Amino acid sequence: MKMKNFTIKETHGKARTGVMKTAQNEFETPVFLPVSTKAAAKYLSSKDLEKIGAKAIISNSFLLYLKPGMEVLKKQEIHEFMNYSGTVFTDCGGFQKLRSMFKGMSKKGIHFRSPYDGSKHVITPKKIINVQNTLGSNVAMSLDDCSPYGSSIEETKEAMERTHKWAKESLEEFSKLKDEGSKMQLFGICQGGFFEETRKKSCRFIDELTVNGTNFDGIAIGGLRIGEPAKLMNKMVKVSTEILTEEKPKYLMGVGNPADIITSVQEGVDVFDSIYPVENARHGNIFTTEGKIDIEKSKYQFDFKPLDPNCDCFVCQNYTRAYIHHLFKTDEPLAKMLAVYHNQYFMQRFMEKIRTAIKEGELDKMKERTVKQYKTP
Amino acid sequence: MKMKNFTIKETHGKARTGVMKTAQNEFETPVFLPVSTKAAAKYLSSKDLEKIGAKAIISNSFLLYLKPGMEVLKKQEIHEFMNYSGTVFTDCGGFQKLRSMFKGMSKKGIHFRSPYDGSKHVITPKKIINVQNTLGSNVAMSLDDCSPYGSSIEETKEAMERTHKWAKESLEEFSKLKDEGSKMQLFGICQGGFFEETRKKSCRFIDELTVNGTNFDGIAIGGLRIGEPAKLMNKMVKVSTEILTEEKPKYLMGVGNPADIITSVQEGVDVFDSIYPVENARHGNIFTTEGKIDIEKSKYQFDFKPLDPNCDCFVCQNYTRAYIHHLFKTDEPLAKMLAVYHNQYFMQRFMEKIRTAIKEGELDKMKERTVKQYKTP
Repeated sequence: MKMKNFTIKETHGKARTGVMKTAQNEFETPVFLPVSTKAAAKYLSSKDLEKIGAKAIISNSFLLYLKPGMEVLKKQEIHEFMNYSGTVFTDCGGFQKLRSMFKGMSKKGIHFRSPYDGSKHVITPKKIINVQNTLGSNVAMSLDDCSPYGSSIEETKEAMERTHKWAKESLEEFSKLKDEGSKMQLFGICQGGFFEETRKKSCRFIDELTVNGTNFDGIAIGGLRIGEPAKLMNKMVKVSTEILTEEKPKYLMGVGNPADIITSVQEGVDVFDSIYPVENARHGNIFTTEGKIDIEKSKYQFDFKPLDPNCDCFVCQNYTRAYIHHLFKTDEPLAKMLAVYHNQYFMQRFMEKIRTAIKEGELDKMKERTVKQYKTP
Repeated sequence: MKMKNFTIKETHGKARTGVMKTAQNEFETPVFLPVSTKAAAKYLSSKDLEKIGAKAIISNSFLLYLKPGMEVLKKQEIHEFMNYSGTVFTDCGGFQKLRSMFKGMSKKGIHFRSPYDGSKHVITPKKIINVQNTLGSNVAMSLDDCSPYGSSIEETKEAMERTHKWAKESLEEFSKLKDEGSKMQLFGICQGGFFEETRKKSCRFIDELTVNGTNFDGIAIGGLRIGEPAKLMNKMVKVSTEILTEEKPKYLMGVGNPADIITSVQEGVDVFDSIYPVENARHGNIFTTEGKIDIEKSKYQFDFKPLDPNCDCFVCQNYTRAYIHHLFKTDEPLAKMLAVYHNQYFMQRFMEKIRTAIKEGELDKMKERTVKQYKTP
């Protein structure tokens, strides 16, 4: 019954296309989720997200719990609040991002200070599952602890064991919510740092974990792309996907470089999210079908072609490289608006092309080209 | 023949509706021009400008001359460069904004340093008319010198005399361009500070100025809303409009407060521009048909109505006060995008309502309400 949430369609090696179904909608995988941390994508309205074809996004439940806060989100759950018709994934503020807010642990749970007003908060795996359910998340993540890149095997194991303990508590609470009729799905997050032994152990644990007859709807691979070389990340993805159940959707968190995405799709990953297209756009790095271009370079001053002549997005239909170069050079807010729109549109089309390439058995060719264009150290 | 550029339609007291015709399009007056200083409106694309019904905007020719520069604008004039189908007015960088760049005068002209790269530039009335013509301006302004609020009568006279000398030189150059086939219109700018005597003198001079049989297509009232109280501004507008030829369009530069606009429309002003709606939006001050609201106030946290329940703009159709409050409180770029869109849309509808009120003889009533809602000291 649970498997109906995800149906594999075509495969090409370990790569596969699929359809993920949530209480909100259904969408094809591999899929890229634009990041909408605080119920808003950077420089894009929810209507823009729909226009570019983003049928799923990811928000941060812990930050939403702080602002607008649960009193607001009880009155209007997140879809209604931001007027977005697609699926909302939520993570719960992986420690990697929240370390500066992290104030230690106690029997009560994890202690945080709000970055907004310094107020003290305690979260527990159980509490954050309920937060995600209340705010209307379609696909929640279990609370995890991510050891930083460079951690020792001992530190890695400690974070992993904590992640596993929390996964159990999350699943327990989730099974109750399901009994109460919640349509939310829950993904477990594997950790295990950069040691094969711990990665494998964590994948096996999360993959097999069952509490009260309930297991995770999908598996997220966490703690990667946090400073390690691409090669090491790729290896860890491979190690992980070799263990994880084929039937469940696999979500590689925080990965958005096209080269990394296509390499991971070949290992069977289905879901991605990242601020990568936005961070690039902010700095004038534009994704094109010929590779990345730095629109601030003086050679674009007289270039009256679109950002990407092969792109049919609103920006490429209406504006030139010369104009967008000018907007960046004069610090106009419109510069980032247009660049972000284009890069996010590019990512959605890129995922479409990946799905087509899988169907048509052309993924290897597409990968070769993409890695050449987008490879990073 | 020249008068065909502007046709008065209905009048109500000194207030009037009209149609202004340029080489680009025609549009009804009173009109409000969104400011697009550097060939871009803040947080709005040219397609957004068209969507909100802005049929004319204003850019700054001196800043465009610096960036993207004339080499670019010779290849693509401004409409094509920014892909905007409406009329482009250009001013030439009234000294009030450029004082920090101003490096003195010589026989050669006015010396400036570029704020972008510190490079030295000399402009003359003749040169800036040509810049405006080359970049594709539909309605150019003659170069003027604006004395700051608080200037003595002597300082005011000095700036005024300079403005008049430049107006003559501008008109001389303009008459040549017209002979060469230019379809550009040229407005003269009155100055004269805050003394009735000099204001009147300047208005009379600019209004009557004819060089080689050519006079100005319209008259701009410059040097107001630069720090003086509203009452003093209103008086200076009244003094000016009493002198200026009825048949020509009158443009009150830099004025955008709805109360100021409607008060000046009653004196016969036809054209306005200002960064006022944008500056307000940036700070969460939202224009509504019930007056201005500060969306950051905590009372909007749970307010699920649109910014203005009487508004049919994209933002009001899709988002709530509670959501936009949240976006401001969390510093999301989308906050400013939505607030600016709404305020600029509001201004276009406000001008429509003014035109209707003139036609229907309801302007006094509308003014009373508007002044109550939008009055500033």
